[in-house]
Amino acid sequence: MNKVALAFDLGGTELRAALVDEAGSLLAFSAMPTAAADGPAAVTRQMEQLAAEVLAQTPDLSPIGIGVGAPGPLDPEAGIVIGPPTLIGWHEVPLATILSDRFELPVRLENDANAAALGEWHYGAGRGADSMVFVTVSTGIGGGVIANGRTLHGRRGLAAEIGHMTITNEGERCFCGAIGCFEAVASGTALGRHATARTRKFDGSLMRAIASDGDVSGRHVVEAARKGDVLAMELLDAEARWLGIGFTNLLHLYSPDILVMGGGISHGFDLLQEVVVATVRERAMPAYRGVPIVAAQLGRHAGLIGAASLILGQETDIGASPSIERKEASNG
Amino acid sequence: MNKVALAFDLGGTELRAALVDEAGSLLAFSAMPTAAADGPAAVTRQMEQLAAEVLAQTPDLSPIGIGVGAPGPLDPEAGIVIGPPTLIGWHEVPLATILSDRFELPVRLENDANAAALGEWHYGAGRGADSMVFVTVSTGIGGGVIANGRTLHGRRGLAAEIGHMTITNEGERCFCGAIGCFEAVASGTALGRHATARTRKFDGSLMRAIASDGDVSGRHVVEAARKGDVLAMELLDAEARWLGIGFTNLLHLYSPDILVMGGGISHGFDLLQEVVVATVRERAMPAYRGVPIVAAQLGRHAGLIGAASLILGQETDIGASPSIERKEASNG
Repeated sequence: MNKVALAFDLGGTELRAALVDEAGSLLAFSAMPTAAADGPAAVTRQMEQLAAEVLAQTPDLSPIGIGVGAPGPLDPEAGIVIGPPTLIGWHEVPLATILSDRFELPVRLENDANAAALGEWHYGAGRGADSMVFVTVSTGIGGGVIANGRTLHGRRGLAAEIGHMTITNEGERCFCGAIGCFEAVASGTALGRHATARTRKFDGSLMRAIASDGDVSGRHVVEAARKGDVLAMELLDAEARWLGIGFTNLLHLYSPDILVMGGGISHGFDLLQEVVVATVRERAMPAYRGVPIVAAQLGRHAGLIGAASLILGQETDIGASPSIERKEASNG
Repeated sequence: MNKVALAFDLGGTELRAALVDEAGSLLAFSAMPTAAADGPAAVTRQMEQLAAEVLAQTPDLSPIGIGVGAPGPLDPEAGIVIGPPTLIGWHEVPLATILSDRFELPVRLENDANAAALGEWHYGAGRGADSMVFVTVSTGIGGGVIANGRTLHGRRGLAAEIGHMTITNEGERCFCGAIGCFEAVASGTALGRHATARTRKFDGSLMRAIASDGDVSGRHVVEAARKGDVLAMELLDAEARWLGIGFTNLLHLYSPDILVMGGGISHGFDLLQEVVVATVRERAMPAYRGVPIVAAQLGRHAGLIGAASLILGQETDIGASPSIERKEASNG
């Protein structure tokens, strides 16, 4: 029979659960607003409730394990949610152990960006790549890296914090305190802020009209540009230039076979692509210039599907690897 | 008997060979100026000559294989030197195959920065780390990354091109054509250039005196600062600030357990450390602030020792790995 996994995507706003098969298809799905203010016990109760709902939709299927995508910082090897800003009262929560005790199934945990990267790698735009960089551009900028067939984790699973890569010495201060973070100049939030600064309430501009004369968001800019608004197109060109500078760094640093862009702003990928690619060609060293830069394919369920792949993809790279054992032996 | 490897460090200026044992000790050593202008055939003849010399020094030892560190870009899996700017006439040279035919021994190739990183990881400042970033700061800036027990290669072994990571939008244009490369603002060359711009021939300054009233180099700045020269100390503080900005990016991107700085400018590490660490503490996200930043330990032989470790360390991560096979299976 088709193997299936129970997958959770634990966001600060929404908690989603699904039963996912080896083809990456969602066989059952349920979601609810995350009780983000009520602490880990409340959220794990929600996870039990959602699990019961999706399992009731497919009574003939038994998941072989549970994959969870959750906000970072998060230690995938230890299965611990370290302390995400979006979940109140979560501090070093051993979520993998809690769920595995509750459901009596193996549990694998991964941060949300890495989970989405895995989804796109196994089932989406990155299929077949040996190395892949996934960048999500929405409220912030996050990333996940597949390096020669394995998720790049680093110490405590904290690698690929690409939103806080410094790429310039200008622009507004990032919430993290530094100047020039990729996220501070190129996130959807930054794009909306730039558009808001360039327009005014009731100025008759298309962007303000789309925003109902409130603050303009990144998505509003994309929508206005698609309708031919000149200022919106200019703002997207500036956005694409920043993305190109950041992406060039990622090509130099990780040397992927492909770079996949997801997140809310990737809905405007077709409008951004030309300037992104031109910027990369202008700035990258020759050996990196031809690497494809493409839009993500799985949409909002990438993280859920990637979480399932932690179980179904038989990724066993977490924990002591043979090469580490070899290293210790050679040092001894 | 003690296992030994024949190691080469093929630089644009000097070609070195050694017989290295499992403790990382050089049992025999020989070097000559690289015939960099005479093409690959001349250089491989030099390698044969050096091999004969080191083997003659230790007639009772037989190497089990050959490890080579050579300038990038270089494809370690295919064993091909792609086309380094410092070696004239080298274009897609299958050096591993050439040497293995010549010596009838297994040959492993790695780019020079990765080889030095491996040396420091197996035998130097990075011993015991699961993940390590090695940064060499001299004429340019290069890097090698150990990620969870394996060298980070990416497509064609081109990962960790950290010298051309954009970190600012100011400063002189890099030789690569871009503005704001880490190397363009923080290499030893940049430090020397800054010092040269701030002084004049025969101005009586200590830095110009040390430079015999020629252009000031990065090493001259370090030497003058060590003697208490105020301007040199100021220049080193600015250098340390740039290094801190770049290192913070590397912590966010690779999440190493330790960051090791080598190269000519690391002779001034003790003078740079305080400002480097303060900059990292100011700019890094909390989870990355405490990662140790230390000086390399192996000096100029790091690359040679690391090249030997390609053979003695039994690194077998090059080529198709089990996780890649698993991935293809799960996609099938």
